[in-house]
Amino acid sequence: MIKIGIVGATGYTGVELLRLLAIHPSAEIVVVTSNSEKGKKVTDIFPNMHSHIDLEFDDHQTDKLSSCDVVFFATPHATAMHYVPKLLDHGCRIIDLSADFRLTDPIKWQEWYKEKHTCPELLKEAVYGLPEFNRDKIKNANLVANPGCYPTAISLALLPAIQSGLIETGNIVADAKSGVSGAGRKASLATQYSEVSESFKAYSVSGHRHFPEIVQMLTDTGNKDINLTFVPHLVPMNRGMLATIYVNEIDGKTDINKHYIDYYKNEYFVDVMPERSHPETRTVKGTNYCRIAIHPAGPDNYMTVILSVIDNLGKGAAGQAIQNMNLMFNLDETAGLVSPGLIP
Amino acid sequence: MIKIGIVGATGYTGVELLRLLAIHPSAEIVVVTSNSEKGKKVTDIFPNMHSHIDLEFDDHQTDKLSSCDVVFFATPHATAMHYVPKLLDHGCRIIDLSADFRLTDPIKWQEWYKEKHTCPELLKEAVYGLPEFNRDKIKNANLVANPGCYPTAISLALLPAIQSGLIETGNIVADAKSGVSGAGRKASLATQYSEVSESFKAYSVSGHRHFPEIVQMLTDTGNKDINLTFVPHLVPMNRGMLATIYVNEIDGKTDINKHYIDYYKNEYFVDVMPERSHPETRTVKGTNYCRIAIHPAGPDNYMTVILSVIDNLGKGAAGQAIQNMNLMFNLDETAGLVSPGLIP
Amino acid sequence: MIKIGIVGATGYTGVELLRLLAIHPSAEIVVVTSNSEKGKKVTDIFPNMHSHIDLEFDDHQTDKLSSCDVVFFATPHATAMHYVPKLLDHGCRIIDLSADFRLTDPIKWQEWYKEKHTCPELLKEAVYGLPEFNRDKIKNANLVANPGCYPTAISLALLPAIQSGLIETGNIVADAKSGVSGAGRKASLATQYSEVSESFKAYSVSGHRHFPEIVQMLTDTGNKDINLTFVPHLVPMNRGMLATIYVNEIDGKTDINKHYIDYYKNEYFVDVMPERSHPETRTVKGTNYCRIAIHPAGPDNYMTVILSVIDNLGKGAAGQAIQNMNLMFNLDETAGLVSPGLIP
Amino acid sequence: MIKIGIVGATGYTGVELLRLLAIHPSAEIVVVTSNSEKGKKVTDIFPNMHSHIDLEFDDHQTDKLSSCDVVFFATPHATAMHYVPKLLDHGCRIIDLSADFRLTDPIKWQEWYKEKHTCPELLKEAVYGLPEFNRDKIKNANLVANPGCYPTAISLALLPAIQSGLIETGNIVADAKSGVSGAGRKASLATQYSEVSESFKAYSVSGHRHFPEIVQMLTDTGNKDINLTFVPHLVPMNRGMLATIYVNEIDGKTDINKHYIDYYKNEYFVDVMPERSHPETRTVKGTNYCRIAIHPAGPDNYMTVILSVIDNLGKGAAGQAIQNMNLMFNLDETAGLVSPGLIP
Repeated sequence: MIKIGIVGATGYTGVELLRLLAIHPSAEIVVVTSNSEKGKKVTDIFPNMHSHIDLEFDDHQTDKLSSCDVVFFATPHATAMHYVPKLLDHGCRIIDLSADFRLTDPIKWQEWYKEKHTCPELLKEAVYGLPEFNRDKIKNANLVANPGCYPTAISLALLPAIQSGLIETGNIVADAKSGVSGAGRKASLATQYSEVSESFKAYSVSGHRHFPEIVQMLTDTGNKDINLTFVPHLVPMNRGMLATIYVNEIDGKTDINKHYIDYYKNEYFVDVMPERSHPETRTVKGTNYCRIAIHPAGPDNYMTVILSVIDNLGKGAAGQAIQNMNLMFNLDETAGLVSPGLIP
Repeated sequence: MIKIGIVGATGYTGVELLRLLAIHPSAEIVVVTSNSEKGKKVTDIFPNMHSHIDLEFDDHQTDKLSSCDVVFFATPHATAMHYVPKLLDHGCRIIDLSADFRLTDPIKWQEWYKEKHTCPELLKEAVYGLPEFNRDKIKNANLVANPGCYPTAISLALLPAIQSGLIETGNIVADAKSGVSGAGRKASLATQYSEVSESFKAYSVSGHRHFPEIVQMLTDTGNKDINLTFVPHLVPMNRGMLATIYVNEIDGKTDINKHYIDYYKNEYFVDVMPERSHPETRTVKGTNYCRIAIHPAGPDNYMTVILSVIDNLGKGAAGQAIQNMNLMFNLDETAGLVSPGLIP
Repeated sequence: MIKIGIVGATGYTGVELLRLLAIHPSAEIVVVTSNSEKGKKVTDIFPNMHSHIDLEFDDHQTDKLSSCDVVFFATPHATAMHYVPKLLDHGCRIIDLSADFRLTDPIKWQEWYKEKHTCPELLKEAVYGLPEFNRDKIKNANLVANPGCYPTAISLALLPAIQSGLIETGNIVADAKSGVSGAGRKASLATQYSEVSESFKAYSVSGHRHFPEIVQMLTDTGNKDINLTFVPHLVPMNRGMLATIYVNEIDGKTDINKHYIDYYKNEYFVDVMPERSHPETRTVKGTNYCRIAIHPAGPDNYMTVILSVIDNLGKGAAGQAIQNMNLMFNLDETAGLVSPGLIP
Repeated sequence: MIKIGIVGATGYTGVELLRLLAIHPSAEIVVVTSNSEKGKKVTDIFPNMHSHIDLEFDDHQTDKLSSCDVVFFATPHATAMHYVPKLLDHGCRIIDLSADFRLTDPIKWQEWYKEKHTCPELLKEAVYGLPEFNRDKIKNANLVANPGCYPTAISLALLPAIQSGLIETGNIVADAKSGVSGAGRKASLATQYSEVSESFKAYSVSGHRHFPEIVQMLTDTGNKDINLTFVPHLVPMNRGMLATIYVNEIDGKTDINKHYIDYYKNEYFVDVMPERSHPETRTVKGTNYCRIAIHPAGPDNYMTVILSVIDNLGKGAAGQAIQNMNLMFNLDETAGLVSPGLIP
């Protein structure tokens, strides 16, 4: 059994890791941490874990982490970077679900996160944990930067087309919508039930922290000319993310839908639906799947539209982190991740 | 008092008309119709109207309509066109909230609504009821085609820029999101609570009936080169609509935000918020307001983003219809429409 | 125009007062306070008030309050009691929407609110602001204790039967359900969207602060033998409250439904529905109405069931407060309160 | 592998069976039926089943069912009774999730379901499938009547106390609340999103079909004097059920909480929480668990309150059906049912 530590296990990505790893066939959770809930039983905070886990929360500083095979960080940004170097020294492998190791450029990181990075040398070493594009590197990585939710949904929708040069990259629009759990589990006025229920809004239109991550990922295909417009929105639901992406095809002669089906035919977690389908986020609720559908440009729409749905806590966070763990430890890539989406 | 008839008063736009007109200072509802609920008391179906209305539903054929000063049609499409000519002959004025008189071209109408229009000669006569652009024509109209909800939100957001030639019209993206009441009040599997709650999806991506209406409206400014991509989405909430619109500014030197503030400075129902704001649909819930915010292109977004929120049943339907009625009958344009949005 | 001050105008009851008073025919809001938002414009926090109010928030200490005809307190408990005596001295009349003056016994108040009352002498002077039972006293009151939401829904459902001795009072069960706005507008983990959405729970089962208020109100009918079991629940919706009340009829020979219809026949805001109806909270959304329905005991239910719905922010708070103001200032009791419920 | 048929696999209990059985270690779904979707692929209707099931819907009459080891009926009432006798003759074992075999008395069945039962002789043979009370009988049963959701939540909460004579049974109040999925998956006006969202109501107060089932179950303990008042309510959420039960303890000297802990100490799926806890339905979302909490009577509540939460589609339907299957086929009782609740 792989010995597992989870740092920051009281947030929504943390409790999703708990939920999934508790029944993972090869995982044993040995330490969970929370600075705010130190000393409390996991099941007192999360009764759904009753009969699945019998641990108390330690604080992040606990020495127990260094004996883990892998440590997941489910913390706000600018936390993991303070712990990761020492844990790597102890031989732990790290999967960081926060943003600390996603950008390769420490200057850009500082610009967006308003803080100096404390271990910039690790930014080059960290592997961006999108298995569908970095599978081999992930297998051997000691430090995996688990992608953000928006970058996951958008990259999976765009990379097949960009890599094959099927679309113009000088004007891409990504209009993305996320459930409220993406804002994290903390006391906040802005995400109170009565502030977001029965309402809808865009947010961070003039600059969201996932913007540079998406641009970096799309540029990593070798493309130099990425002009992106990215607008995130808040949907009154707990889980789920839809990216509606608008692109211009370069010649309009390629069957993009067929290209995507071929491209992803061996990917268990990416489901290219029939052309002109309308994927619903609920079909991926609680899962590590991504569903994609292509709507080619036509008389009634000038641009080609690509739809992409994930669970922001699943393929957008904890699910993908476990997929990465499976790769890093030579397990079946789907281990612990095959449950179908919860409908309704 | 203006004597009012409402045809199809059991749908969501119908009951919103009831709610607003019941306390309108110059209106008296004298007949309401519903083919399915004929003979039942309004308050048996809608207890919220208790102490406000004491009528039974007639069927659509009732002669009582012909004695009304104005008849509202809150019916599915292809219904009003069968009744309107006769009522016009009787001297009734008509506000049609359905799609029957919105397109000026009967061939285009037939193409999108899959049916032959029964009074194509009225299509030219009907006035498109967007007061902010057609105020004078509406005042004298006998037949007003009340705009669709998506066309309202999108037109109000775009026309100031298009009319002044500030943006390119060869590539406009309108990503729009609507609450579920937009689908109407009827037994339907697709809009069951457990089919749409906790989920999000795009729909009709490859062709929605509001597409030609939007293009027609934008073209009516004199512009010949409208290339639109329009994608509607379904939000798990009752009321509210947000359009996120992506455009390229022509020179980038005009202060678009200031232009919009000037443009709408005398419009009571259009609120141009401070630049880079994030309007929430809940701020217009139950009202006839539209809030607009501009996010100019910048280093982190390639295109300029215009956000526009309305209540799909308010400014997107019943509220706008009453605004039109106020104009047609020389009332204060805001009569019966000044209640602030219901928060939360 | 009545000059109005609102203390604590950033909570949900405060913003509901703003919404309703902004269009009240006889009210002029002259000062609004918020210690946290002092100096900000009301419309910056609540854009729905755009074009309705042009004030900035003062802090609670502002002298401007003393020039008001009436001051509403929409504050957490243990706030109003520090300001009310001085304002009364200045000749202001007070409507306190908090709990500070609802219990007549200062010892009981201290027991439930864990704090010493600072002006216990006012507890006897304060009039409990349930117009349907205290109308005459309210008219002349200088200090009105506006009832809690649960006590309002439950008292209106029970008092007709208790006053006429139709039911046993030795065993009353009140199972009540409230929308989330009842928890107030503040940063709190417990009422985050993702903590309460798609979930349901009872809370404060072993002692809720509305318990003694309900018992006091029911006892005030002259009845000495009130044994109550009261369990509140949290419903994943913004507004609305349903109380399901279980009682034993004393002889089973009286037509309780008819008794209620008679009892409330002159009450504009209480709607006794047909026997065996199922009132929905949405029919009172945004209103000051209460709907009640009686289900007499029968072979399939041992006890008689009384259902009662209100809007917790309407008849349960701000609506009732304005009804009280109307009484205190000899206005039409329904002034500003006649808008039908918002469906959907 | 156990060969499985599911009749009526397009309803919510049907698709929950699909979801759970698709990854059950000992189950193989070989036939699924739907009269309305005959010939369509399961994954076309339920894309969440993509990569899990590759079947088309047959109609209910298909001969393939007779080769199954076990057939689940997830149909509306008065359907299973027409197919079960023949399938039993073919040696299939039956788990009926509908109401057809829950009442032992055919006259009572006819009274509540307004139809003559077509195989009354099977009513005595059918075993009521509540494993915590009927485990041994279920193991050998050929026909299991899977309990209704309300009866499950209420029986698990009451039977320990009734069997041990701790509470009075002459006056039990069960105030129960269910998510909307309990109403089934079908086009219906009453459960449209915009009819139930942001609203709350009681329904069937004067007689719900689960009433006689609950009374029968409670009486089966040997108790002759069950007087029940049962009121179901509709909660605007997809899944989840809470029963709030009010009882009088007989002597008040027994520690009921401890009694429940002892009683259920070997039951994997029943979690008796610490005394005075407030179980949330979300802690059992997607699971087969039931959580119970006891609030003894005290100065502030006259009666003892028992809270019980289940997922109406889990322990209230499909989960319990699979628990029954596990028992019938000598599998580990928890097989396929151990995933923790989905939070949020």
